[in-house]
Amino acid sequence: MCRFTLYLGPPVRLSTLLTEPEHSLIRQSYHAEERSEPLNGDGFGIGWYAPRLWSEPALFHQITPAWNNRSLQSIAKVVASPCIMAHVRAATPGSDVNLANCHPFGYGGYLLMHNGHIGSFRKIRRRLIDTLTDEAFNVPRGSTDTEHLFAVFVDEIIRNGCPVDPGREDSSDGGGAMELARRLSAAIERVLRLGEEHGDGESSFLNVAVSDGKHVAVCRFDTDPQESPESLYLLHGEMYEPAGRRFPERRPDDEGEAMVVSSERLTGDLRWRAVPAESMLVLDRHAPPRIVPMDPLGRLIEA
Amino acid sequence: MCRFTLYLGPPVRLSTLLTEPEHSLIRQSYHAEERSEPLNGDGFGIGWYAPRLWSEPALFHQITPAWNNRSLQSIAKVVASPCIMAHVRAATPGSDVNLANCHPFGYGGYLLMHNGHIGSFRKIRRRLIDTLTDEAFNVPRGSTDTEHLFAVFVDEIIRNGCPVDPGREDSSDGGGAMELARRLSAAIERVLRLGEEHGDGESSFLNVAVSDGKHVAVCRFDTDPQESPESLYLLHGEMYEPAGRRFPERRPDDEGEAMVVSSERLTGDLRWRAVPAESMLVLDRHAPPRIVPMDPLGRLIEA
Amino acid sequence: MCRFTLYLGPPVRLSTLLTEPEHSLIRQSYHAEERSEPLNGDGFGIGWYAPRLWSEPALFHQITPAWNNRSLQSIAKVVASPCIMAHVRAATPGSDVNLANCHPFGYGGYLLMHNGHIGSFRKIRRRLIDTLTDEAFNVPRGSTDTEHLFAVFVDEIIRNGCPVDPGREDSSDGGGAMELARRLSAAIERVLRLGEEHGDGESSFLNVAVSDGKHVAVCRFDTDPQESPESLYLLHGEMYEPAGRRFPERRPDDEGEAMVVSSERLTGDLRWRAVPAESMLVLDRHAPPRIVPMDPLGRLIEA
Amino acid sequence: MCRFTLYLGPPVRLSTLLTEPEHSLIRQSYHAEERSEPLNGDGFGIGWYAPRLWSEPALFHQITPAWNNRSLQSIAKVVASPCIMAHVRAATPGSDVNLANCHPFGYGGYLLMHNGHIGSFRKIRRRLIDTLTDEAFNVPRGSTDTEHLFAVFVDEIIRNGCPVDPGREDSSDGGGAMELARRLSAAIERVLRLGEEHGDGESSFLNVAVSDGKHVAVCRFDTDPQESPESLYLLHGEMYEPAGRRFPERRPDDEGEAMVVSSERLTGDLRWRAVPAESMLVLDRHAPPRIVPMDPLGRLIEA
Repeated sequence: MCRFTLYLGPPVRLSTLLTEPEHSLIRQSYHAEERSEPLNGDGFGIGWYAPRLWSEPALFHQITPAWNNRSLQSIAKVVASPCIMAHVRAATPGSDVNLANCHPFGYGGYLLMHNGHIGSFRKIRRRLIDTLTDEAFNVPRGSTDTEHLFAVFVDEIIRNGCPVDPGREDSSDGGGAMELARRLSAAIERVLRLGEEHGDGESSFLNVAVSDGKHVAVCRFDTDPQESPESLYLLHGEMYEPAGRRFPERRPDDEGEAMVVSSERLTGDLRWRAVPAESMLVLDRHAPPRIVPMDPLGRLIEA
Repeated sequence: MCRFTLYLGPPVRLSTLLTEPEHSLIRQSYHAEERSEPLNGDGFGIGWYAPRLWSEPALFHQITPAWNNRSLQSIAKVVASPCIMAHVRAATPGSDVNLANCHPFGYGGYLLMHNGHIGSFRKIRRRLIDTLTDEAFNVPRGSTDTEHLFAVFVDEIIRNGCPVDPGREDSSDGGGAMELARRLSAAIERVLRLGEEHGDGESSFLNVAVSDGKHVAVCRFDTDPQESPESLYLLHGEMYEPAGRRFPERRPDDEGEAMVVSSERLTGDLRWRAVPAESMLVLDRHAPPRIVPMDPLGRLIEA
Repeated sequence: MCRFTLYLGPPVRLSTLLTEPEHSLIRQSYHAEERSEPLNGDGFGIGWYAPRLWSEPALFHQITPAWNNRSLQSIAKVVASPCIMAHVRAATPGSDVNLANCHPFGYGGYLLMHNGHIGSFRKIRRRLIDTLTDEAFNVPRGSTDTEHLFAVFVDEIIRNGCPVDPGREDSSDGGGAMELARRLSAAIERVLRLGEEHGDGESSFLNVAVSDGKHVAVCRFDTDPQESPESLYLLHGEMYEPAGRRFPERRPDDEGEAMVVSSERLTGDLRWRAVPAESMLVLDRHAPPRIVPMDPLGRLIEA
Repeated sequence: MCRFTLYLGPPVRLSTLLTEPEHSLIRQSYHAEERSEPLNGDGFGIGWYAPRLWSEPALFHQITPAWNNRSLQSIAKVVASPCIMAHVRAATPGSDVNLANCHPFGYGGYLLMHNGHIGSFRKIRRRLIDTLTDEAFNVPRGSTDTEHLFAVFVDEIIRNGCPVDPGREDSSDGGGAMELARRLSAAIERVLRLGEEHGDGESSFLNVAVSDGKHVAVCRFDTDPQESPESLYLLHGEMYEPAGRRFPERRPDDEGEAMVVSSERLTGDLRWRAVPAESMLVLDRHAPPRIVPMDPLGRLIEA
């Protein structure tokens, strides 16, 4: 089922998410507390943006567990970023553990990661593929459900004329966080409609995060009437410095709100609050977090 | 472009192909001599049958190079088999190196491996997928050309009612080596016709081997009018013992011809001969090797 | 702390230990039940003997978890052996996860694996190394405690003139199971004496198994007066066929007792019994299992 | 034998060494031109300093080849640094390929990497270890020659009271580039003297680079009277921007000389010049490169 953590705000080191907090993402890779199975050891992935250096994010994927990876621990201390996505994977039994299947998935300037699974995926995969543009058809390099959800998201980006690489200076802004949320919502709706028509009634669990490096949209969502969606929390404040160590390298334009969203709370900080079920968090560094409810088909219920 | 080696005959240790010969497959992983690029370091795979123990073959895949793999060297000495397929990979630049992409590919009791590439593959992939049964559609776990050729081969197996697991005692024989060759030929023809209709004229190089554990079909084939297909050699004799060490563990019913087919000759033995271009080798332990010419669409020209 | 399983008896497939039983070793890699931490995901290793083919055992090591390894699952079904050692590792925090550190460790015809740790290891390592012959000095390829215990065991083998490769036909028998147990006991005593002299009082936990392919010695031992040693069980009977499927490939000389020793019981079979604390199991296929008590320095208290 | 590349100067992206130049280090991983064997596929390692963020360097090690590593390609574009060390490895045959053996090796704020080998290493290893402080004794995590050379270098650092982490703000400067060169030279001398006394006359090839993040010392050295040392080149100029793309993120205090040292020239730039045989390059960002000859025992011949 996986665990993930993301950050948007003034630059922080990766280690402030991955290793320093008492319930860091690395700890969640072997001792997750809010799912029945505590283990997320089927590889990991980190994506981060360095907007002053390059418009596309870096992607560091490994098929070995996060908890024993020395390179991860070392890199996390030395790399800082204003927008980070990190994921530890628990592969569906029988599913592959290849680099191609590691989250977050990248396309141009976009990243996507997922905690959950798509109901009846094997039954809808062929039809899902049929709906894609040729460009999006080539996005999945493996055969897992999230790769295909990502292909639908990319398809939405392409069909709506969004810039492929919104971090480039000469790129238009891409519509901001709300536009990103709408594209993710549309992708979810497409997948759910296929499941309704061709699936066998299996529920979907879709905690999904997307980013363009400046904005983030992340939802806590499921289609099961009996169960809650997977856990998801938001921490939002002036600064995020869990180890109490002031970040050394901040510039005037780095000010602004810091937002952390995580499958499980990283720290004992009392400001963490649960993201409401069936809703989308819409995050922009220069505005307060916005919560938009979703209907049973994943559509945003915008006021 | 890759290199491969296969064996059919009385049981031999894997090491007689992989490590003992002076120009063993492991040596070909870094010092191949009959292709312009000597390097085949993008992972490897070994498939072998143990018909008295289990009807499906074992598959040992690694994404690291063959030459520095201690487990490979160790296992090769201790494991013996009457039917072996081994492959060292040179990934097409930009192509993935995942476990899912390692040859040989397995389905039930069948194995397939490939040296070469499918012309215009990116242009025909969607159409190729459209032609598959649902069962064969789920065969590729990655996005490389050989995985898709294998899916077409499996599709042929299914559509022609071949047994999925011909090694099982209660299984019908599956038609023998010639039937296997016809299925491989039909798969190649389907792929080439798609290329003719929708491709951009890029040539295909298709040295492809398939086996059901009792029989082998392997072709040396290309569609380029200017170039020869990749190299391929056959060694055929009463016994195969390259290190001159008599195999300790042979039983009465293990007698029969020994056949080795390899991208490059493993030894200085003068009996190695080149497989003719554009032809299919049809191998059965209880009959001499048969060579069947192929027409430009990969069809067998049976006398 | 790790989990391990070993087998001595008429040939069985590896899968009868690794994957088929309800509480197989692969299951123990993520859901161990008799240690506080259920996770053993820092790589694995399998060693097996094929005495009719080669005198040294095969060693298959991987640094990725056992539970998602397709090659392991595939090989386990197809490979059979009369003597098997299998280990899933939980690295001491901060310890390396390299192929060089994977159990079982091999030297000539011997294998050793360990569940536990050596107390005060960092404090005694230099002195331990000083006691080794040059040959044994070169045995450890990494820096973990078990590699050094294995070096001491190899040192005992060498100093006592035991054959390096007891599985070779021209090799003398090597003294049998009791001699193997004495060498393991002597190695343990050397390590514990170093700890007594130069350590800081930290306890040692030494569930250790060694084999020469024909015999096995395995102890359940610790030096902690307050705690029990790690769990260890023996199953002993005419045959071992956990899945109720008769092994197809047994010959007249394959008869004899079947013995499984495992950190946790693999099945619900009522014949499993706990190995007594502070004792050595001495196993020979042609004799009933013998249990020899050990004194606090690891010495055998032979009647 | 390996290939390596290092950089000291105003921050550049890792990709300007690793992937962008026509003869980048990644290209040298499979097509090295100045050694008889073009292949350096036994893993790789990158170390880089981010002095404004953390005093210790990041270390990214992999046991898979550099040429097919997507994470390496991605990270290289997005990470910039004023001091970079990168290494592609060709393991001595029979040597291990573990993460523990990957260059560069790190200790506190120091890095070391090596192209070549230590003559008679197996014969001197025990004696070498005996000369180490306890702290340095624990430095090698594997058993390769370079790990032990690094341990001697660390031993020199410790015995001479050099700061362990010279990048820390509260750290004394550590004596600068010349001091670093003296410590490397002293380590080499110790190793060579052991070889003279206890070795079998095998030559040593010691192209070795060390850094503390601010300074670099790197030598081109061997002890073979018949052969030249391994190739080594220096490029030195106002800026290093091989792809002609101005680095976007430079600050006033980033100015200064740019220096690249590489086993093979990365580009066709006419300013590359060979480092003289048997000499040490001493590099400081705020001074021109200095070349100091070495005597046959590796001692610096300071004017």
